Amino acid sequence: MFKKRDNIKEVEEGKYLAPKFDKNGLIPVVTTDLQTGGILMHSYMNNEALKKTIETKEAHYWSRSRKKIWHKGQVSGFVQKVKEIRIDDDQDSIWLSVDIGNGASCHVGYRSCFYRSIPLGKIKNDENLKMKFKEKEKIFDPKKVYKDEPNPTEL
Amino acid sequence: MFKKRDNIKEVEEGKYLAPKFDKNGLIPVVTTDLQTGGILMHSYMNNEALKKTIETKEAHYWSRSRKKIWHKGQVSGFVQKVKEIRIDDDQDSIWLSVDIGNGASCHVGYRSCFYRSIPLGKIKNDENLKMKFKEKEKIFDPKKVYKDEPNPTEL
Repeated sequence: MFKKRDNIKEVEEGKYLAPKFDKNGLIPVVTTDLQTGGILMHSYMNNEALKKTIETKEAHYWSRSRKKIWHKGQVSGFVQKVKEIRIDDDQDSIWLSVDIGNGASCHVGYRSCFYRSIPLGKIKNDENLKMKFKEKEKIFDPKKVYKDEPNPTEL
Repeated sequence: MFKKRDNIKEVEEGKYLAPKFDKNGLIPVVTTDLQTGGILMHSYMNNEALKKTIETKEAHYWSRSRKKIWHKGQVSGFVQKVKEIRIDDDQDSIWLSVDIGNGASCHVGYRSCFYRSIPLGKIKNDENLKMKFKEKEKIFDPKKVYKDEPNPTEL
């Protein structure tokens, strides 16, 4: 299914898919929102998750916290319909463009996981940087949707 | 400058920047194009690259191939002017929105590194997946711009 990565010219300029999985068997994935154009989330896939995503046209990732294939939306109902998959020059990262309708993609409840903006400019000594919330309202209540599911965030 | 990550609630719902660098001291970064809205590249920053990016408002990354801070555009001239930086729920990935004018961001010569699209649907046995080029023309000739610089792509 994937071509062997045997020369750089072919990987960069060729037509064949030859993804590079890291030493844990994972490739980073960025998912953007067809409706808003913004980034929804950053995650990882293994070989099987990539294959399932291509074949079913629904996003599947590798959950590093749960150590298993993660069909996005199975618990929350917010399935991601894949409109396009792209890969970068050296084929070591993936871009999914997905349709989530009026749904959400962040387990905290916001539409996008990237709901906070970092201030730009000179940083004062020992200043803790204070961010701005760019999404004001949650789309869903995580307590109601996830109930007793463990929180995937790790310190 | 960065707050200690001492509780999950604060990391997810708080205002303070508390990024998580991996065991190599890196955090993944996705860079989008202010003009087209699309993804330009996927890369990494260390603590210092993030600080320089915030302070100078020009994108700095960590080059894993050259093992040094990489002020994007220093060789090619295609500097990325940072318009916004966002971070995700668990603060382990970054989204940069940048202005590159009529420039390019991919060392192969295209505007975006994500110039190829993967076909969707059922995969036949042992089929090598053939991609489509979504960018038809290179913005610059890498041989002229990079001359004897080593190619960062690794097999």
